[in-house]
Amino acid sequence: MTISADILDRLKAIVGPAGYIDDPADMEPYCVSWRDGWRGDTPLVLRPASTREVAEIVRLCAEARVPIVPQGGNTGLTGAGQPHPGGAEIVLSTNRMKAIRDIDVLNDTMTVEAGVVLTTIQDKAAELDRLFPLSLGAEGSCQIGGNLSTNAGGTQVLRYGNARNLVLGLEVVLPDGRVWDGLRALRKDNTGFDLKQIFIGGEGTVGIITAAVLRLFPKPRESQTAFAAVTDPAAAVKLLGVMRDRLGEQITSFELLQRNCLEYVFATLDGHEDPLSAVYPWYVLIEATGQGAPGSLREPLEEALAGAIEAELVPDAVIAASGDQAQKLWAMREELAEAQKLSGTGIKHDISVPLSRIGEFMERADAALNAAYPGIRHCSFGHVGDGNIHYNPLNPVDWDPKAFAAEREKINRLVHDIVAEMNGSLSAEHGLGRLRREEAEHYKSPVEIDMMRALKHAFDPHNLMNPGKMLRP
Amino acid sequence: MTISADILDRLKAIVGPAGYIDDPADMEPYCVSWRDGWRGDTPLVLRPASTREVAEIVRLCAEARVPIVPQGGNTGLTGAGQPHPGGAEIVLSTNRMKAIRDIDVLNDTMTVEAGVVLTTIQDKAAELDRLFPLSLGAEGSCQIGGNLSTNAGGTQVLRYGNARNLVLGLEVVLPDGRVWDGLRALRKDNTGFDLKQIFIGGEGTVGIITAAVLRLFPKPRESQTAFAAVTDPAAAVKLLGVMRDRLGEQITSFELLQRNCLEYVFATLDGHEDPLSAVYPWYVLIEATGQGAPGSLREPLEEALAGAIEAELVPDAVIAASGDQAQKLWAMREELAEAQKLSGTGIKHDISVPLSRIGEFMERADAALNAAYPGIRHCSFGHVGDGNIHYNPLNPVDWDPKAFAAEREKINRLVHDIVAEMNGSLSAEHGLGRLRREEAEHYKSPVEIDMMRALKHAFDPHNLMNPGKMLRP
Repeated sequence: MTISADILDRLKAIVGPAGYIDDPADMEPYCVSWRDGWRGDTPLVLRPASTREVAEIVRLCAEARVPIVPQGGNTGLTGAGQPHPGGAEIVLSTNRMKAIRDIDVLNDTMTVEAGVVLTTIQDKAAELDRLFPLSLGAEGSCQIGGNLSTNAGGTQVLRYGNARNLVLGLEVVLPDGRVWDGLRALRKDNTGFDLKQIFIGGEGTVGIITAAVLRLFPKPRESQTAFAAVTDPAAAVKLLGVMRDRLGEQITSFELLQRNCLEYVFATLDGHEDPLSAVYPWYVLIEATGQGAPGSLREPLEEALAGAIEAELVPDAVIAASGDQAQKLWAMREELAEAQKLSGTGIKHDISVPLSRIGEFMERADAALNAAYPGIRHCSFGHVGDGNIHYNPLNPVDWDPKAFAAEREKINRLVHDIVAEMNGSLSAEHGLGRLRREEAEHYKSPVEIDMMRALKHAFDPHNLMNPGKMLRP
Repeated sequence: MTISADILDRLKAIVGPAGYIDDPADMEPYCVSWRDGWRGDTPLVLRPASTREVAEIVRLCAEARVPIVPQGGNTGLTGAGQPHPGGAEIVLSTNRMKAIRDIDVLNDTMTVEAGVVLTTIQDKAAELDRLFPLSLGAEGSCQIGGNLSTNAGGTQVLRYGNARNLVLGLEVVLPDGRVWDGLRALRKDNTGFDLKQIFIGGEGTVGIITAAVLRLFPKPRESQTAFAAVTDPAAAVKLLGVMRDRLGEQITSFELLQRNCLEYVFATLDGHEDPLSAVYPWYVLIEATGQGAPGSLREPLEEALAGAIEAELVPDAVIAASGDQAQKLWAMREELAEAQKLSGTGIKHDISVPLSRIGEFMERADAALNAAYPGIRHCSFGHVGDGNIHYNPLNPVDWDPKAFAAEREKINRLVHDIVAEMNGSLSAEHGLGRLRREEAEHYKSPVEIDMMRALKHAFDPHNLMNPGKMLRP
């Protein structure tokens, strides 16, 4: 399958000279992922400047049966945003759709186009003395359209929910080129199916999100950060219960870290030091934020931690004495991925299980991998308050990295079999894309796969919208 | 269309003698709504005791093309839960499916069957020192399956979200009789479309919810209730901003009341008195709850209200000095519907608009109705934090109630035209059912109606699941 020159010309005419790229070298960044080596080919990258242009492109592609790969900031981790090899698809990038269309401070909403970068939204909210709480590693380059299409998570899900929870309305170009104006800025609307839910986390397979109404929140006036040792992941879950009983939703982040993760940070990156005087197998990094006067959260946080120490749930803990110290603790967490990369070859998993089973998951997964791969190095961390663990074992030091990488599928199966037995998820926040498509089909029931296919087919009967992502073609 | 005796017999055999009703008098409560006079006919009410029985019923009905009306506590307000006149549908009641299947305190989840009554869930959560925050007038008889099928709202949406936000997983019997086991107890799961969203708020038109995994929350340790006068609804919205800036998510409820509502309560019901010494046109009833020591919320609440009084946003306010006083204030709010009923004939609207436009909506709607119906009595209240107003004008005192009731459609049109211009919702929390089906179609775009139909058709191609509800047949 190739796309005819006539169609390519007509597509170019829709967007004009500023709106397309057809030089292979210039198209390269749109065809390759920044990590994990996903790549493909396309004869044309389109960069429409408006919803109207997106609609015209999609309508023409629908008529000519040309498949489209929608792309935001191209920061995804599952190969959902790049074309397949072979050059039979066009890429539609939202990176020229950067308007903030509306701000309604009294309604706590902001209406943005799909191509607005996440930090731009965060910054604009802060200017208005508000918070847009979605926060993740790629925030400086990911775009809100992609964040919504993948239902992005991040470090503040515990308090504010996933991306799904942060949006009130959507504008979507449907696979036939019609525009659905669902840009409602309402907190309650029970007039039929909540259609936006289909596109949030839909990985661009049922339409292209072109704009969204986002929820804003009161900007916290007060923030405290603590770092606590725990004996094991199960203790971390218990500690979360203790902290939430005392501080409620003011517990904004609750991140688990395995000792090894810290060791890799200390060994490979400068400017970090051990926050506690002794060594412990596991830690949690806790952030509490609230609306009280600066300092007012410190006492309840201290009390809750003191209670946990007394109950022998926590052997040692420290509360950051300053914003600088808090930032240092967070830097350790944020540089984990980099430190891990410098320390070996990781096989990454983005799993979730019920919170009550995190300890059991860790024990069983570690045991299974230790038995199969003696010397394998564990380096797990995650958003324990969401039951979401980035379970990323590294190659044994005496293994060739390539040989270890070749074990990827076997290791995935070992880990995901345990996840499946616990009724967990093999992709908690990253999505399926091309990476987990077959695995999802393996573990999900045939009923559920049928439902997904029925939904896809109802909206995209010719399978032209990001085909082969999330579901096999 | 009638249902053959053979099919009726086979349906009875599935559930056994304890599981069906076919005596007309005994079926009457299943055929009539408790309010607004919705009624219909059926030859058979089935009361299956298990998901397996539900699945067998649905499978047989699918084969025989017999339409099914799913019913929970039969407390809905839109005629969605009763059969149509004519007797061509069977009613499937979930009121024998009352098991609490699982409780996981560490994961803050409870797995319940569709027929469990809402207060049972609230009480069980409280026993576990947890909160299930869904709370609404019918809570003593509504069932969780119906709450989820209508995406119920209530008085705590501001803090905890609609019913949609309180569920992690569902079990659903699909229109072909297959069972979808989506009973996952996960806070994060990005493995494809979030299929449960289709059934939440789906009004039983695409399947029957048989069980759900519900989220539990920390039980608040501390609660404060305040009652404040405001000059108009716009001032109430500003006050909400002030309160949330100071107290954040601890503002659990924020209810608006028009002076007339209080007058009707005082005139028709015993045991109420005016909470403030002077008369004001509008009031808000505020509840703040938190995790601190009893009394600890009082100071920030006082400070925030004092600031609002100083800024002339609030002319007068009182904070309940005791639990008794708080309960009295809430009783006034809760008895509003009854007082209104005793005071005249109301034409009810359950609308929402962006918070920033609540004042404008009220002004325009009042002006339009005053012009068309001189002497019409206004009695509006609602969940102002959600932009949701129950806009319920009463007949002018010199109008015959029946003559006024005959104006229903004209009045609906006047009110909903204004809502539509503000991109609002004509059913914020009650759903469409039969009541708002045509109006929704009138105001929604053809694209959106097509999308709703495509979704319905993908799951229920023979239109056997609650046909004619939400969408025209």
